[in-house]
Amino acid sequence: MTERHPTPLLDRVAGPADLRRMTDAQLSQVADELRAEVIAVVSRTGGHLGSSLGVVELAVALHAVFDTPRDKLIWDVGHQCYPHKILTGRRDRIRTLRMEGGLSGFTKRSESPYDPFGAAHSSTSISAALGFAAARDLGGSPGDAIAVIGDGSMSAGMAFEAMNNAGALGKRLIVILNDNEMSIAPPVGALSSYLSRLYAGAPFQEFRAAAKGAVSLLPEPFKAGARRAKELLKGATVGGTLFEELGFSYVGPIDGHDLDQLLPVLRTVKARADGPILIHAITRKGKGYPPAEAARDRGHATAKFDVASGAQAKARSNAPGYTRVFAEALIDEASRDDRIVAVTAAMPDGTGLNLFAERFPARCFDVGIAEQHAVTFSAGLAASGLRPFCAIYSTFLQRGYDQVVHDVAIQRLPVRFAIDRAGLVGADGATHAGAFDVAFLSNLPGFVVMAAADEAELVHMVATAAAHDDGPIAFRYPRGDGAGVEMPARGVPLRIGRGRILREGTDVAILSFGAHLGECRLAADALEAEGVAVTLADARFARPLDRELVARLARGHAALITVEQGAGGGFGAQVLQFLAAEGLLDGASIRTLTLPDRFIDQASPAAMYADAGLSASDIAAAALAALARRRAAHRRSPTARR
Amino acid sequence: MTERHPTPLLDRVAGPADLRRMTDAQLSQVADELRAEVIAVVSRTGGHLGSSLGVVELAVALHAVFDTPRDKLIWDVGHQCYPHKILTGRRDRIRTLRMEGGLSGFTKRSESPYDPFGAAHSSTSISAALGFAAARDLGGSPGDAIAVIGDGSMSAGMAFEAMNNAGALGKRLIVILNDNEMSIAPPVGALSSYLSRLYAGAPFQEFRAAAKGAVSLLPEPFKAGARRAKELLKGATVGGTLFEELGFSYVGPIDGHDLDQLLPVLRTVKARADGPILIHAITRKGKGYPPAEAARDRGHATAKFDVASGAQAKARSNAPGYTRVFAEALIDEASRDDRIVAVTAAMPDGTGLNLFAERFPARCFDVGIAEQHAVTFSAGLAASGLRPFCAIYSTFLQRGYDQVVHDVAIQRLPVRFAIDRAGLVGADGATHAGAFDVAFLSNLPGFVVMAAADEAELVHMVATAAAHDDGPIAFRYPRGDGAGVEMPARGVPLRIGRGRILREGTDVAILSFGAHLGECRLAADALEAEGVAVTLADARFARPLDRELVARLARGHAALITVEQGAGGGFGAQVLQFLAAEGLLDGASIRTLTLPDRFIDQASPAAMYADAGLSASDIAAAALAALARRRAAHRRSPTARR
Repeated sequence: MTERHPTPLLDRVAGPADLRRMTDAQLSQVADELRAEVIAVVSRTGGHLGSSLGVVELAVALHAVFDTPRDKLIWDVGHQCYPHKILTGRRDRIRTLRMEGGLSGFTKRSESPYDPFGAAHSSTSISAALGFAAARDLGGSPGDAIAVIGDGSMSAGMAFEAMNNAGALGKRLIVILNDNEMSIAPPVGALSSYLSRLYAGAPFQEFRAAAKGAVSLLPEPFKAGARRAKELLKGATVGGTLFEELGFSYVGPIDGHDLDQLLPVLRTVKARADGPILIHAITRKGKGYPPAEAARDRGHATAKFDVASGAQAKARSNAPGYTRVFAEALIDEASRDDRIVAVTAAMPDGTGLNLFAERFPARCFDVGIAEQHAVTFSAGLAASGLRPFCAIYSTFLQRGYDQVVHDVAIQRLPVRFAIDRAGLVGADGATHAGAFDVAFLSNLPGFVVMAAADEAELVHMVATAAAHDDGPIAFRYPRGDGAGVEMPARGVPLRIGRGRILREGTDVAILSFGAHLGECRLAADALEAEGVAVTLADARFARPLDRELVARLARGHAALITVEQGAGGGFGAQVLQFLAAEGLLDGASIRTLTLPDRFIDQASPAAMYADAGLSASDIAAAALAALARRRAAHRRSPTARR
Repeated sequence: MTERHPTPLLDRVAGPADLRRMTDAQLSQVADELRAEVIAVVSRTGGHLGSSLGVVELAVALHAVFDTPRDKLIWDVGHQCYPHKILTGRRDRIRTLRMEGGLSGFTKRSESPYDPFGAAHSSTSISAALGFAAARDLGGSPGDAIAVIGDGSMSAGMAFEAMNNAGALGKRLIVILNDNEMSIAPPVGALSSYLSRLYAGAPFQEFRAAAKGAVSLLPEPFKAGARRAKELLKGATVGGTLFEELGFSYVGPIDGHDLDQLLPVLRTVKARADGPILIHAITRKGKGYPPAEAARDRGHATAKFDVASGAQAKARSNAPGYTRVFAEALIDEASRDDRIVAVTAAMPDGTGLNLFAERFPARCFDVGIAEQHAVTFSAGLAASGLRPFCAIYSTFLQRGYDQVVHDVAIQRLPVRFAIDRAGLVGADGATHAGAFDVAFLSNLPGFVVMAAADEAELVHMVATAAAHDDGPIAFRYPRGDGAGVEMPARGVPLRIGRGRILREGTDVAILSFGAHLGECRLAADALEAEGVAVTLADARFARPLDRELVARLARGHAALITVEQGAGGGFGAQVLQFLAAEGLLDGASIRTLTLPDRFIDQASPAAMYADAGLSASDIAAAALAALARRRAAHRRSPTARR
């Protein structure tokens, strides 16, 4: 805590109630101290700095004006919640942010009553807030419902669905559009340029004067007042706005860093709103910290850094480890095949497709936060004869699941799914875990589902996917750095549905699917050291399963252990259902090691896997237990086993 | 074919090329003959009559003006495709529509080159069309991309995502908004009332004159021309439209049943469009067939009927069988618990919630075609202390999968999912099969997943869900009529995670999950007749699994067969992974019967299940085979079995 700057007023804020006793001038000072505190904290913890700095004044103003936690304040995505957490009784633990046993990097219901609805994936806040608003009117929890949502999140279909429903229901509901012209990447899509037109050239000063003077005196109905306030904006010539067309009253745009605008507008809205209202606040990601404001991503997610210089503790490449390997392999394939195109849903840097876009700008599509569209758009590209790689994190691919089934699998279209962040992901915790993709893809007829054991395998899987035109194909790989294996000069397509044996033994077979192969190797070494002869195999494919390999492992060993970085119902389940169908379950004693039946909080990936019971020693122990049971059974007679 | 009316011009249409040789007057006559043909066909086959009648002129005009199949014509949802199928070489098979071995009730790539992208779920067409448009510009298949999408489908988030992306990409793309003010149910949402304002009081006659005279002479750029045409509409005072704000040129509204408007507008658009353009056509569902126009749902989906009177062969109740049982059970619970509320995504009749809404209008929310929002909105209601029942068909719940994981499961919110149309659904075929819900729900920590063996069980499961506040709970039930069992006066909550044994034997255990219990009982009878003693059990819960029951069945029988109306990775996989973890696989010879590893085309549900290998005789055969293998193994010595 040595870097702590003086924060005399913030020190008096044990909770939002303390803000409500302050003057507007004091609130301004609290905001300044809060900004400095956020910078100091994130310099120690790493995290989502830019978005948190962009909502410092908003957080102060909202908690000062509204009666939280009775009023429900819902931060979309939740990664901008650090000022909110500091103001709501969590300052003492704020330096444990995103650490094992510490505060979550997102809002979380179990963490605080001030987090009425947790988040981490984008664009859920309006739906949730509308749920609170509708429930309130039916005798549920009382109070206002307020959603704070960024312009990027607003472009997702889910937010539109919620706006459409809210506009029709007409219930009192407050949506604050936190328009920073930046989601993680620069904004894309028509909505973004629409928003830009809304405030092009509009000087905030005039609204500021209006806000201070007139807004609190606006006549009923408030709608008319809001319209008049808007007319005060020179240059805001847009007539009916998109939001008004959807049934919302629209207020703005206002300067989201100016408490002299925020406070009166929020007070007026609180006093007068009688339906859904959208407050359009313009903010700046990274606001107030020059190194963040200057960064290309405005300090979206940062490692620990030096406050004075902004230099990060560890140089971050744009696409380290697996992500970069994927990008370079795809670029290599695309340099020889002009039918290869790439699709990302607002994650060009995170997926490495920024590198692809630099090389092939016309062949790379960033569709925005729009996974449903991304998948079906890719299906259209495939139906037209191209070879689309649709690169989406495992956890976000859940958003496009129906499209994967209905538009890709049923039509057997050769969309290539590059699934980054598969398995446990570390500091982002349970909401970002890539736990379910193998399960939800591996029962889809016609799909090919691969997982890369290491970064060299990933290169070959990119080549395999590029060459595979006979239906959809997916390959998953984890967050972070590869295993450090020797890299091939060029990817070579794998034979579909064939695994590989890395080591042969006679007692136990360990069948790994994906990037846990390293742990499996350690487990095999440990078993060998105890005199157990181990076959170690890499399945490569969850679908089609290498039936010959699986049958051979089941028949030829006393115990068979499958290992995967995913939930139940996935690879191990496929193995068991195949063996059951073939009547081969009576052979080896089988265990399927998966993620456990609970959500796992943030820690390092290694600590999370240990928590999950998937360390090398867990694997070895499972093998020994299976072996022991099998040997005990063999000592009994078959009839006794009924 | 005895009811065939004279169709002299339509008889000359072997394909769209024949339309292109006709005069506009002849096209009008073709449209009239086509309408009569559609009525005659659906009177024999049943199907989506209303929506097909609404697009007769659109189908004629599109195929007459555009160069299909080189130009890609994509019908959203696809249930309005009957006129399109008749015009595109499928008239000879049109009376096999929705029948086993016949034409699909939707568009389908494998059926015709005129179906470039199949559909069945809503709101995918713009994404797919944009994929074709983007691919075309990169050397993919040439030609225009045209999406025809209804106003209901347009309200889904996925359509908004696609519009947002299309508006930004700026590629030539044609979207036809088929605005019939009706999806399946009356329209909901703010978009719907926005669309109504767009054409309120606008007489088509003036546009008609403009279309015939001036539109083909419109100056470049087309955008300006379209705007001017719009200004001709008296009463259309809306300034910038929502679609223009999203980057589209907007033309309309025009009368979608008037070829004198449709043909010149489409010709002009074809000649001039240089970016994304939206043509707003007003149509009438059921157009031209008075019994359909008069029906509450405008003849959305109909059984076979008498053409003269419109009387349907079989009286359809609004909520037959399981659906009605669910609705009545929920109404009963809600009458005693005012915290119970209900949410549907544009399926009030299909889910039976129309009955709930009649009784409790303020407690029923139809959010429109918006499954993502429906799930998170329900989560918000639950977080506020209410007891929401979110009723969504199995296949459509796929649209809200990420919300189920991220907003419901991770937060352990007690949303009750009523999953109708689980399993195979008959005439709607593979796209509507409820195949995957058990698999994608049963590996979510904290979830309770039930399936009703019959309609009495469904009543108890509604009561179970109502009483369960400790996290999410889902129950699935099939399409169609119940088993005819005696009904309880009132639902009684089941003990969570406990199945039931219906019959006890010593040789084979059949463990059924869900509505296939009747088939399992028949299989048990057949086995008993062959001298095999059978235990028949109903699992009730896939999660939490009745571990005691499963272990007992595995230990106490030579063979254990699980049966479910769902894909692999579901209930059977849960059973196997549990037995593996407990080291109990060495006991009984186990088979997990599921839907097979392929998509199953339409037929009667019974025929589909027979096709799937899930008939009573299949189940009995699987049991006998497992038993035989087990007995053979017992004759061998344990060591020989390595």
